[in-house]
Amino acid sequence: MGRSRICFFSALASVVLNIFLLINLYNHVGGGIWEKQKLSWTQKAAEEAEAVALINCSVHGRAYLDGFVVDGKPICECNTCYQGPDCSRFIPDCAADADSGDPLFLEPFWMQHAASSAVLVPGWHRMTYRFADHTFISEQLKNQIFRLHSISRNAITKGKYIVFGGGSTQLLSAAVFALSANRSSPSRVVADPPYYPLYRMQTDYFETARFEFEGNASMLKNNSDSNDNVIEFVTSPNNPDGILKKVILKGSSVKTIHDHAYYWPHYTAIPAPSNEDVMIFTLSKLTGHAGSRFGWAIVKDKEVYENMANYILIEQMGISRDTQLRAFQLLKAVLEGNTTDIFNFAYERMRDRWEKLEQIISLSKRFSIQEIPIQFCNFFEKDRGASPAYAWLKCEREEDTDCNAVLLAANVIGREGSKFMAEDRYVRLSLLRSQDDFDLLLRRLTDLVSEENGAQIM
Amino acid sequence: MGRSRICFFSALASVVLNIFLLINLYNHVGGGIWEKQKLSWTQKAAEEAEAVALINCSVHGRAYLDGFVVDGKPICECNTCYQGPDCSRFIPDCAADADSGDPLFLEPFWMQHAASSAVLVPGWHRMTYRFADHTFISEQLKNQIFRLHSISRNAITKGKYIVFGGGSTQLLSAAVFALSANRSSPSRVVADPPYYPLYRMQTDYFETARFEFEGNASMLKNNSDSNDNVIEFVTSPNNPDGILKKVILKGSSVKTIHDHAYYWPHYTAIPAPSNEDVMIFTLSKLTGHAGSRFGWAIVKDKEVYENMANYILIEQMGISRDTQLRAFQLLKAVLEGNTTDIFNFAYERMRDRWEKLEQIISLSKRFSIQEIPIQFCNFFEKDRGASPAYAWLKCEREEDTDCNAVLLAANVIGREGSKFMAEDRYVRLSLLRSQDDFDLLLRRLTDLVSEENGAQIM
Repeated sequence: MGRSRICFFSALASVVLNIFLLINLYNHVGGGIWEKQKLSWTQKAAEEAEAVALINCSVHGRAYLDGFVVDGKPICECNTCYQGPDCSRFIPDCAADADSGDPLFLEPFWMQHAASSAVLVPGWHRMTYRFADHTFISEQLKNQIFRLHSISRNAITKGKYIVFGGGSTQLLSAAVFALSANRSSPSRVVADPPYYPLYRMQTDYFETARFEFEGNASMLKNNSDSNDNVIEFVTSPNNPDGILKKVILKGSSVKTIHDHAYYWPHYTAIPAPSNEDVMIFTLSKLTGHAGSRFGWAIVKDKEVYENMANYILIEQMGISRDTQLRAFQLLKAVLEGNTTDIFNFAYERMRDRWEKLEQIISLSKRFSIQEIPIQFCNFFEKDRGASPAYAWLKCEREEDTDCNAVLLAANVIGREGSKFMAEDRYVRLSLLRSQDDFDLLLRRLTDLVSEENGAQIM
Repeated sequence: MGRSRICFFSALASVVLNIFLLINLYNHVGGGIWEKQKLSWTQKAAEEAEAVALINCSVHGRAYLDGFVVDGKPICECNTCYQGPDCSRFIPDCAADADSGDPLFLEPFWMQHAASSAVLVPGWHRMTYRFADHTFISEQLKNQIFRLHSISRNAITKGKYIVFGGGSTQLLSAAVFALSANRSSPSRVVADPPYYPLYRMQTDYFETARFEFEGNASMLKNNSDSNDNVIEFVTSPNNPDGILKKVILKGSSVKTIHDHAYYWPHYTAIPAPSNEDVMIFTLSKLTGHAGSRFGWAIVKDKEVYENMANYILIEQMGISRDTQLRAFQLLKAVLEGNTTDIFNFAYERMRDRWEKLEQIISLSKRFSIQEIPIQFCNFFEKDRGASPAYAWLKCEREEDTDCNAVLLAANVIGREGSKFMAEDRYVRLSLLRSQDDFDLLLRRLTDLVSEENGAQIM
């Protein structure tokens, strides 16, 4: 080969290398040096988050940035009934946990929306006690919440006030204190069974001169005495049975607290936007972030609002700015995309779970679950079937007075009816938990039901 | 030129281009494709955070990720007395704000530690109500706190329990409820004036049968009745005057709550690690993150601990996981670097401020501030001068019974002594705020003092 041929092929090889390097350079700066920003101080935090997300915890667990560290990385934290370094090992005979309302059914949604829901918090983020307007409330977050209610059509917020609290938990307490202020005699707090145990627990705990828990709202209804100074908790949809409820007691001195934790398309038809005096919502059941401890109250009356805000001030001096930033980012992810995404996702999941459960229980004479009729939903603009957060299971056999014990013997952990001021013939089963939890619950119930007649159902 | 020469120079040019491209590729992937991780789902969040940090707010403000948006980016949020799109415009005759204890003096520390203090929170971070151990407490964060107390030598934590709360605010309330549980008669809550107003506000607010605020601890001391069922708040160093304090009342049925919010090298000598029954600390005054609403109580007695934990459960179901992650990252930044960095930074700043203030006030007969002796510090292992969080200013002239009014007339906003159960001859001046706030405070006080004799001091 002549020298010019050697030169030609060398030059060709070099040009090929030029092209390869040019392509690589283009890719590594992500579409052009003018497009992808080179990171500096956030690089480390972002890398750490991605590294932790890459830790293999099978589909039965996940690692967290602040988890316990082994061999230089956080351990996998497993779903109930799974164990091992990567959570892949099922624990035989493990009891299906249907006790708590941990809304892990929404976790996959956030994993699918990783980019839009991530937030990088700088070290100097909002260090002061108050916002620039001297409140404890993020204006941006408030506006997002109002917008969300408008889109989901589940509450009238126009002309009303908002208070942020540590979950609906803190706001329930704040509401009772606020509504019992400046009254001539102690307020009597009531609710209609079955009801969420926290109402009584909180009211009893404070042992205050302002109010006391009297109990069953219906008993006051039958009582011909006036309903002076009564505060009624109305949970709609109800926890534990998912039924849409209305106020029981009438009268101008009856004040109401509407606990609307579950009043989202995930769990119920939305017949009309709620327009009550005090309406309490929580991020826990909307986005699934129960750990964030963030809720809000929409309040009609200015004095009640000021009273509730005062409670939050005295008790905690406002809700964490870290939490408010997190909620802001999560709601931004909800509102910026196709805003119905989360509602569709959640409804489809919960509906599917309910249908599967209904199918199993329909084969049983021993157990029954609550009936929730098909109803027109203002949000989906169509009739829709039930998709409640909990099954309110009843043991129908006369001898099964302790239904939770029946389930426990079948390796299912529920929450006994007496916790909700109902008979122990009832058990609340959480349908909110991870897919692993629900699958195991269904398996155990299927086994239990198939034992009834000695017949194999599946 | 022959063909081989053309070929040679073309090949040379191509090789030079290759070298250039290789260098560029190396630089753009930051030291080699094997070193800097390419980000995916965290890129957007990281870019947003950096973009917001780059918004020019002069040195008198900063923008936040969740700030009000104008022209597509969050606005600058300015220090008091500054305004304009970039916070560069000083508001003439603006009052120096020395009212609140917003610890912005620590903001520059975090800006200097941007990389280590940033945390990227994924959308699925800790969605459940409880940690894997069924508590509301992050084990990692707990360990960091214990380590921090060990390093700063300000508290004995061995063998003790820890409760997290929404700032020390929530824990003060939790402690009173816990210590007044299961007593034969209502507890009487006392403190030694001047004291932090919140103690009384909280105790009064709850109007509970369990306890009531009785007031001045010293009065009970002089009273020959027994000190049955007394709960004494001991704030050390004290708010407002920075003095290290001890329990006033003795007796086996006297229970104490030690509010150690300021018991850090920033604000006081650490003569010895505190070893009290209930010791309350807050992130607000340690790292400056008052907005995070995170505090902890170190508790000796198991029953008291369980009671306090019960309060947090009933009131809020634990502190936000977002807040706990943030605290974890901030303490990680403190502990991983040179662990004395933050203490040195903080002490130097506060000491400098105190010395400057002392110098001005020393020229005055009209005003005086508290005297805090030089004391040996177990942390710095040397004698150290005062560096309190607040000046407890006294108007010495007989006619100046309303000292706050005197200051207001001179364009200084303080907090009147009566708020702390002291005379209005006293005013608390916050030395914790931003450098802008302190510089303006000093300027106004200098003017005020120089007016005393009609003489120019500066």
